[in-house]
Formats: sequence, structure tokens, C-alpha cells
Amino acid sequence: MILTVTLNTALDLTYRVPALVPHSSHRVTELSERPGGKGINVARVLTALGHDTVVTGFSGGATGAVLRELLAALPAAGGPRPATLTDALVPVAGDTRRTLAVVDRATGDTTQFNEPGPHVTAAEWTAFRQSYEELLAGADAVALCGSLPPGIHVGAYAELVRPARAAGVPVLLDTSGEPLRRGIAARPDLIKPNTEELAQLTGSREPLRATRDARRRGAHAVVASLGPDGMLAITPDGSWQASPPAPVKGNPTGAGDSAVAGLLSGLVEGLSWPDRLRRAVALSTATVLAPTAGDFDRAAYEELLPRVAIEEHAPGAA
Amino acid sequence: MILTVTLNTALDLTYRVPALVPHSSHRVTELSERPGGKGINVARVLTALGHDTVVTGFSGGATGAVLRELLAALPAAGGPRPATLTDALVPVAGDTRRTLAVVDRATGDTTQFNEPGPHVTAAEWTAFRQSYEELLAGADAVALCGSLPPGIHVGAYAELVRPARAAGVPVLLDTSGEPLRRGIAARPDLIKPNTEELAQLTGSREPLRATRDARRRGAHAVVASLGPDGMLAITPDGSWQASPPAPVKGNPTGAGDSAVAGLLSGLVEGLSWPDRLRRAVALSTATVLAPTAGDFDRAAYEELLPRVAIEEHAPGAA
Repeated sequence: MILTVTLNTALDLTYRVPALVPHSSHRVTELSERPGGKGINVARVLTALGHDTVVTGFSGGATGAVLRELLAALPAAGGPRPATLTDALVPVAGDTRRTLAVVDRATGDTTQFNEPGPHVTAAEWTAFRQSYEELLAGADAVALCGSLPPGIHVGAYAELVRPARAAGVPVLLDTSGEPLRRGIAARPDLIKPNTEELAQLTGSREPLRATRDARRRGAHAVVASLGPDGMLAITPDGSWQASPPAPVKGNPTGAGDSAVAGLLSGLVEGLSWPDRLRRAVALSTATVLAPTAGDFDRAAYEELLPRVAIEEHAPGAA
Repeated sequence: MILTVTLNTALDLTYRVPALVPHSSHRVTELSERPGGKGINVARVLTALGHDTVVTGFSGGATGAVLRELLAALPAAGGPRPATLTDALVPVAGDTRRTLAVVDRATGDTTQFNEPGPHVTAAEWTAFRQSYEELLAGADAVALCGSLPPGIHVGAYAELVRPARAAGVPVLLDTSGEPLRRGIAARPDLIKPNTEELAQLTGSREPLRATRDARRRGAHAVVASLGPDGMLAITPDGSWQASPPAPVKGNPTGAGDSAVAGLLSGLVEGLSWPDRLRRAVALSTATVLAPTAGDFDRAAYEELLPRVAIEEHAPGAA
């Protein structure tokens, strides 16, 4: 089983409006709701790839109840083999946040509003820590994903990386800012920053330099996602650049979460680094191409997989 | 008891953001939720004026459950005497809608998003009709307020005006467009259109002409709200213009609902038309002045009440 942690889960709302005009009134012509937060998105892709997945983190209030109902009602993944998505969210007294994407039908552009999330108390954090360590005992790998809700201290991810390392469970950390900086120091197996997150962390916008610097800060392996240019991996086993066969147009929402799912599933399946990177790049490209934000287009994924280009960097260069 | 009907109730969300920038991502810095829909707003003001009030209409799904919880938790009105607000909403299978007001803290401007509301089935409408007629038996007056949810036919308000008239319960209709046009034909005691609604109904933007025309279409009395210019009433007992002492600045959200509460409470208390109009104008002005959208500033209300100017129109002129 793969465990994904989403401390700041969300109910993701999408409003479609004919055209967004600030300071006017809009009739919402189409409305959708789905369970969200990075770790939950990763879990959806993992189950679609045939991996039994457990989601944990926090859930509370009326919005949390809707989130859990929607999680329970997710259609069974149509992947290579049936896989389960199990809800192990820990209750909190506060309300789970909503995120709202307002899509302008005239231009296709999206305007995003993110609620802050519930205030998590020290007792709730302790209850989560205990549940997390129990779940780790049955996990083949764990992904720690996304922002921290109010009340959770910025060193929280370091507190979750350490017991995973102690239990010998490979741990991937996908966050940003100070929680990433603190989390890296606890030596996660893998981080997957994008260019912006890398620049925040290292001060450099030069991918190779920034990726190396991120690795020196404590991560065993760093896979930097370079958007349309693919991914750059610096690992103890070597360094590679993986690129999609051609640039694609579409909605990049969720592409990073699909890449996390690709990397983690490949690790659990014992794939080589080049094969993990092929999967991650094909999945994230197929996510950009999917009509629904955050889903991936399975046919496109299978078509792209053998066409991802892998270039090995000479040891000296990396 | 005064009955208010809100067929399309709503959970009113307000997001405050530092500045609204289309096609970017926003952190919501402040979030509030309150029970909404015009009839529910009217009921809040009525209870604050000391009138026991019953709210009916539809409520469904997770959002409906939150709406009912918030209704039950409304603080007791701090009015001249304690009054109760009773929830008699009728359940529907669909989800109660949300409305979202995004407030730009830099400019104070509001951008509004309104979900359409649940699809109400024929069986749900029949159940509502039956409950409504039972509630009418105990009502001193009834207000029919706001838009119709999907599934409800445009002649619905006429179907609610007739049994009120038959039971001798004074009925105020506050809606717009085709539902107003059809509702008027059933001869409600009072309608309270604003300038825009009057123009839609009559084709005229000249207040006196449009108000007279609206009355000829079937309403026994018409009180046109003229925004900052106050109100124009044409009734079987005479015609009056009521004006606030001075123009005010603020948020006009809910000012019309406060006017409805002023008119209806005055009717039930047997006040003269000039006194009803004084109350309606003072309440709606005190709503514009209140810091929270839709509430009214009680001190401002009491200060304004004796200062509203009433001018009687000569019978020939009206």
C-alpha cells in the first residue's frame, strides 16, 4: 500500500461563468465539486495505476463531510488491475477548506481562490502523528504533499519524514517555502520541486545548479520539474534529463501531482530511474492534455510513455 | 406570526482578498458564511423588530444542512421585545445553492457569483404547497421573496398569492422578471419593485408612470424603491413619496429586504401608510450604513426614523 498525506485537504469547487467581469454579478452556469489537496490528487492517480492507496491528513466540519462522501464515491480506477483508495483522514474540529476555480468560458482562463483551512490544535496534531505512525507500518512508500493548515508548525514535515526513514519506508516530500526547507533537513528520499520552488529554496533559477544545491541540503534524490521541458533528476545512482516528445497545450493543474504518483509507483515497482522518469513525464503530460483538470488521459499516457526522451548526464557534469 | 417564503434559499459566503486580479490565484484572508436568500434576510430584520417569524422555502444537501444549522444558531434579536425565528424549510433532494461575494480589500468593491440552486421536482413543489397552506393558517402576513430555483414554473408565485388572498392573509411579492409579471396577475396586496424591476415590468423608467402601470397590472399597492431617492407608494389610500434626510454611502446589499420587513411589520402593526414608509426608508438607509452587509444599524435606524420626509401626492397626480 502507498500512503499519501494531505494535511490541508480541500473541497475543490469549479464555477464556470460566461465571462469574468470584476465588480459585477455572475450567474454560475456550471458547477463541479471534487475531493482535493495534492496528496488526494496523487492518490487518485496511484489507484488508476493499480496501487492500493491510503489517504490521510485532516478533515472537519460540513466541508470535510462532503469531501469524505466524494472520496467514498470515487469511481473504481479503470487501471491495469483494480485498486482501492482508503480514507484514513483524521477528524478535526475546524472546517476543511474549499478552493474555488472560476473558469471564464470566453477565454478559458481560471481565477483561483484558496481558503486558508482549519486551525489544527496541538491535540489534533498529536492524534494525527499517532495514526500516521500506525499507517506507516503497512506502507511501501509515503508521499507528504502540499501546504500546511493554520496551527501546524513549519517544521511539521521534518517530524513526518523522520519516522518514515526510521521505519525504512521511502518518503517523498512535495511542498514549498519554509516547510520544504525544514523538511529537507530531515533527509527525505526524494523531493520534486518545480522551478519556482527550487528558486525559493536555493536562490538560483539555473536548473542544474539549483537541483544540485537542493540535494546538498539533505534530500537523497531531487527530481526538478521543468514544466514543458520535462524533468531533471539528480540521484545517488546518476543524473538524467527526461523530456516529453513535443510541447503540449492544455491545463497544467495537477501535472505535478501526477508526476509524484509516477515517481512513487515506479519506486515501489522497483523500476530503474530512467523508467520512473519516463512514467512521471508521460503522466504529467497526459494530465495537461486531459479535458478535466487533474485527471490524466490514459490513451495519451500510453502513447507518450515509450516516446519520452532520456538523456544521462555524465557523473562529472552532475 | 409573519411568514416569509424563500424558494431559492442560499448559503451566502463572503471571501475577502487583498486585491482581485482576474486569472491569478488568491489567498482568502477572511471568510464568512451566513444563511441567505431574500426571505431569510427579511425574516432576520422582522425578528429584530420584535415580530415572531417563520421562514419556509426549500433546503437540501450538505449546503442546506449548514444553512439550517446557521439559522438555528442566529443570535436572539436585540429588538424591542424577544422574537423567534422558526425554520419551516421543506427538504429537497438537490443541493441548496451557495452565493459568493468576493470583496476586494483594496477598493472595497464586490464581485458576486450565484449558483443556480437545486432542481425542485413536481413532488417537492406539491409538498411545499401543502406545508405553505398550513403555515398560512397561523400567519398575520406573508412575504414571497426572490428568484425561483430550477424546476419551479414561472407562474409559481401566482399559485402562492391566491391561497393567501383566499385566507385573508396580506401578501407582499418581491421578485423580478417573468415571475413578478405572472405573480402580479394574482393580485397581491403589495409589490416592492426597484427602478430596474419596474422598467423590466412596464418598459418605463419614469417612476410615477411605471408605478401606476405596475398597479394597473393587478397589485393593490405598489411601493417602488428609488434607491437613494427613497420610495414612491401608490396605494388605494393615497400616494406618497418618502425620502431619507440625506444621501448616505455604504453597501446597498439587503437594503431592499429591510424595506420589505419595514413595510410588512408596519402593516401587521396597523401603522398608517406614511408611518410604514418612514420605517421602510429608515430601515433600508440604516442597512446601507451597517458595517456587515444585510444587517441594519439600529442606532442609525432610530435616529433616521423621525427624519424621513413624507410628501403626499394629490389624488389627481397619482
